[in-house]
Amino acid sequence: MAGEEQFRRVDAARLEQLVADIYHGLGVPPDDARLLANALVDADLRGVHSHGCRWVPTYARSIRAGTVNLHPTIRAVRDDGPTCLLDGDGGLGHVLATRAMRLAIEKAKRHGVGVVAMRNSQHIGALAYYTQMAADAGCLGFATTNAGIAMVPPGGREKIVGLNPLSWAAPTARPWSLNLDMATSVVAGSKLGMAIERGEKIPFGWAVDADGNPTDDPKKGMEGGLLPLGGPKGYGLAVMLDVMAGVLSGGRFGRGLGMKGSSQLYQAIDIERFIPLSEFTERMEQLIEQIKGSALAPGSTGIFFPGEIEYNLKQERLAHGIPLDAFVRGELRREAEALGLRYDIEIE
Amino acid sequence: MAGEEQFRRVDAARLEQLVADIYHGLGVPPDDARLLANALVDADLRGVHSHGCRWVPTYARSIRAGTVNLHPTIRAVRDDGPTCLLDGDGGLGHVLATRAMRLAIEKAKRHGVGVVAMRNSQHIGALAYYTQMAADAGCLGFATTNAGIAMVPPGGREKIVGLNPLSWAAPTARPWSLNLDMATSVVAGSKLGMAIERGEKIPFGWAVDADGNPTDDPKKGMEGGLLPLGGPKGYGLAVMLDVMAGVLSGGRFGRGLGMKGSSQLYQAIDIERFIPLSEFTERMEQLIEQIKGSALAPGSTGIFFPGEIEYNLKQERLAHGIPLDAFVRGELRREAEALGLRYDIEIE
Repeated sequence: MAGEEQFRRVDAARLEQLVADIYHGLGVPPDDARLLANALVDADLRGVHSHGCRWVPTYARSIRAGTVNLHPTIRAVRDDGPTCLLDGDGGLGHVLATRAMRLAIEKAKRHGVGVVAMRNSQHIGALAYYTQMAADAGCLGFATTNAGIAMVPPGGREKIVGLNPLSWAAPTARPWSLNLDMATSVVAGSKLGMAIERGEKIPFGWAVDADGNPTDDPKKGMEGGLLPLGGPKGYGLAVMLDVMAGVLSGGRFGRGLGMKGSSQLYQAIDIERFIPLSEFTERMEQLIEQIKGSALAPGSTGIFFPGEIEYNLKQERLAHGIPLDAFVRGELRREAEALGLRYDIEIE
Repeated sequence: MAGEEQFRRVDAARLEQLVADIYHGLGVPPDDARLLANALVDADLRGVHSHGCRWVPTYARSIRAGTVNLHPTIRAVRDDGPTCLLDGDGGLGHVLATRAMRLAIEKAKRHGVGVVAMRNSQHIGALAYYTQMAADAGCLGFATTNAGIAMVPPGGREKIVGLNPLSWAAPTARPWSLNLDMATSVVAGSKLGMAIERGEKIPFGWAVDADGNPTDDPKKGMEGGLLPLGGPKGYGLAVMLDVMAGVLSGGRFGRGLGMKGSSQLYQAIDIERFIPLSEFTERMEQLIEQIKGSALAPGSTGIFFPGEIEYNLKQERLAHGIPLDAFVRGELRREAEALGLRYDIEIE
């Protein structure tokens, strides 16, 4: 089903403006609408479509249903030196996440490290967007969130564990930062949704059906559950990340335990408290050169670092547009037209 | 080759005393010798033989060769509130690691979080031993170290990345703590060494030979390299952990870059700065019960948490002894006899 016309390139700036206008049209304050649009388009630019503009209609539905608080009072439940627990009052996840990471960075600059827990939040999209803020500020950034319950643990056949992701980022002397952002399942859950939308099959090993059998049908995988990365390791990581994000914050954890919404943990460590930032990035450069300079596998185009491929893709797409699939383009057009906005983002 | 006589049970307390006596006999101060013996036997008790007493002869050789400083001056290069950079002066890794995590916990109790980087260290064994200290103190514990260079990155065919592990631990209301301790390769490097010692083959998917081809021969895997957990994810984690342990500390990083030895990062977060510890462990119990109470796969004996199987094994082995393989027993006997110590640890 995935034919030539499945993908068309759209202009990144016009896409961002359209998404901001859609959310503003739905009642999101202008600054928050712009932030949300910027985060979603950034994910598409970096090739992380699973966290890009395909979420626009989902968030729009939540806003229309009144399940998101567009004017939250973000409250510090407790704030002591380098640590803080925030209650997000059910606001937009991307807005809360940006606020929380900004606070973690401020604390890192003052105390050497900042640890900010957030509860009563919503879906925050790609973690890399927030850890990148820390790297840009000369910090080691860390973020995790609890995510949808879709992982089947080793020994089980029911999805009972979240596909909880983590991200770590660090500055380099290159135009890209080291930025690792990964789900603890073999693949992110959105990849099944994307395969369904595009009518594609999935590789065996990603998911099991409702009886616990391997499947290459993304719909059956949705009914069953996703497999953890490397079995016990991915499962162990997923549980531990829910402990850090959900249990520690006093917010939602596990399958519907605690309060509603989702929970996160953000951390920044100021590199200058250990060694000068210039020395750090010089050492990073030595590490990068050593690994990139090692022997390549036959047919390999090179060895890449986490965040590097995404950066390269972003440059190409800023210049030539983002290939969006028919499903996402259709949804954006529908949202735009419902609000009387002009859908004019496709190139050529 | 792995026959019935391959494994014999030894008494944990007598094993720990023998190992302490061996190291004391080699010139290690008594408290440090006891600490090292306790950490090594703890790994064997928990079934983590890859980090247990099979290391006794390796460390003994380093001590005899004079490459370990048995009387290090551990120096705080910089110490500001919640953060500290320590130089381990080439001391025994387990001794330095215990000191560093103790400091991270003290800082967490005072400031809410403690981050301690260590450079100029040695092999520190199983990380779980140190993160457990944090969990026992009511903290979330984290530790990472850079390890031997034995991972082949995606796109490469040369081992150029360390098998850098991570551990996270958290307290529960149960007798065991949640304690995840994992290498970022499919398996820890020591598992190849153990397979060679026992004359066993390894599963395909663990390692590649020197030409980059899959192998089930542990010797060829040693010559080639180990594969990262889940390809780019395990590779990305391994690189990021070296950044945290090696690059940040100013110590050794990459393949022989920076100073000699190994480098680590330790962190403790005081749970009470977020929610009361009793509430935290009550929430942990809800999470544990929810996951354990979910539907089991056919033939499954249950769903287990990281650290739980290790705890259960430890109880059984404290009561009935630790099964040690012929190679390790032989090495311990040789070390004991070389120092005029009595080898009398086997049960029955």
